[in-house]
Amino acid sequence: MLSSPMFFFFQNGTKKSWDFMRTHDSVSVLIFNTTSHCFILVKQFRPAVYMCEWEKTKTQPPQSADKTEEGASEAAATESQEGKSASERESSSQWPPASAGVTYELCAGLVDKPDLSLEEIARQEVLEECGYDVPASKLKRITSYRSGVGVTGARQTMFYAEVSDDNCVSAGGGEPREGELIEVVKVPLHEAMTFAYDERIPKTMGVIFSFIWFHNNMSPKYKISTNV
Amino acid sequence: MLSSPMFFFFQNGTKKSWDFMRTHDSVSVLIFNTTSHCFILVKQFRPAVYMCEWEKTKTQPPQSADKTEEGASEAAATESQEGKSASERESSSQWPPASAGVTYELCAGLVDKPDLSLEEIARQEVLEECGYDVPASKLKRITSYRSGVGVTGARQTMFYAEVSDDNCVSAGGGEPREGELIEVVKVPLHEAMTFAYDERIPKTMGVIFSFIWFHNNMSPKYKISTNV
Repeated sequence: MLSSPMFFFFQNGTKKSWDFMRTHDSVSVLIFNTTSHCFILVKQFRPAVYMCEWEKTKTQPPQSADKTEEGASEAAATESQEGKSASERESSSQWPPASAGVTYELCAGLVDKPDLSLEEIARQEVLEECGYDVPASKLKRITSYRSGVGVTGARQTMFYAEVSDDNCVSAGGGEPREGELIEVVKVPLHEAMTFAYDERIPKTMGVIFSFIWFHNNMSPKYKISTNV
Repeated sequence: MLSSPMFFFFQNGTKKSWDFMRTHDSVSVLIFNTTSHCFILVKQFRPAVYMCEWEKTKTQPPQSADKTEEGASEAAATESQEGKSASERESSSQWPPASAGVTYELCAGLVDKPDLSLEEIARQEVLEECGYDVPASKLKRITSYRSGVGVTGARQTMFYAEVSDDNCVSAGGGEPREGELIEVVKVPLHEAMTFAYDERIPKTMGVIFSFIWFHNNMSPKYKISTNV
């Protein structure tokens, strides 16, 4: 999970002032299942993404009279809406749907255990989030880069892990005690590049980059077209 | 420039609570100069990256006696260090060099002008930061994705712009009144992939991804190897 355990206070943007900031480097892992020829991603609800969408609704012009009328009659037909004032109905109808906060991402985690190597931390995330138990020695380093240079500036290191159904030891899903809402999803290899460039599917750049990296560097090994 | 003009207050991480958060979507532009066959990047000092490196020095074990001795004699030989106490010298010697905060990035900017299209905002950034004047209609959309899903969750749209020396109207460098420290740098096409994967060169994933995108999609047009 990549929600930063950070404590910071920004006033009027990063350029003006900051009092204290703490962040962590992170790892991410492109997982390829050689049994099913699928990439293993995590799909999760991101509060930051949801709030960003919610912010946008506030700056958009109000609904037309027709639309409001329609929304109000729908609300009136719903039992759960009974007893709410008109302004409450209007307010709740402007919340984006929960799906607006969902993104597809690589399995990832923070580097917050100083006694573990990056590979060992990546291995733990693959196990916790996606349920595959692979030795750290099987993780191949792809590259590293700076993430969020305007806000955190931490280094993220990306790995590649090949797994098989035999390595699958649990359903994954992350640590329930951390409040994670993670769903493990599979993207078939032959759909990967279409998935990467479909802007209707909310995703991080890590997903797009790693799919293309695989296409350029690993796909020939499997003699399978990634549909480019 | 991509420093978010945001005001927010996080306590114990994004999952726990937030009071108010405002952020902006952004655009980034891969610029290719067809005259010199170079990519045009911006190299800039990022306070967030620097602070991240500085944080790391605080958690590292103290220097050995030998190293401290060496550092102290160097400091004593420097006129500017005269008059400083031993503890001040020790403190300043632990600051990372300014170069630790520098990253290579795509030309980029925030979507903070509601009356302009994404292409027009991208066009302005290309002009202000890199000094090339190209019509918005020449910007080709590559794709979009979510950036900083753990912190801001905004959408970033990436464009591709072909420019020539004829389009160069200024030295670029960003808006001085915004306090930007931007240097325009050129990366020759034939060195691009080596640059992309050299982890000693601090950069964003946008640089790596866009260079590979160009290699896969545009490079054949120029019949030039991108050294892969």
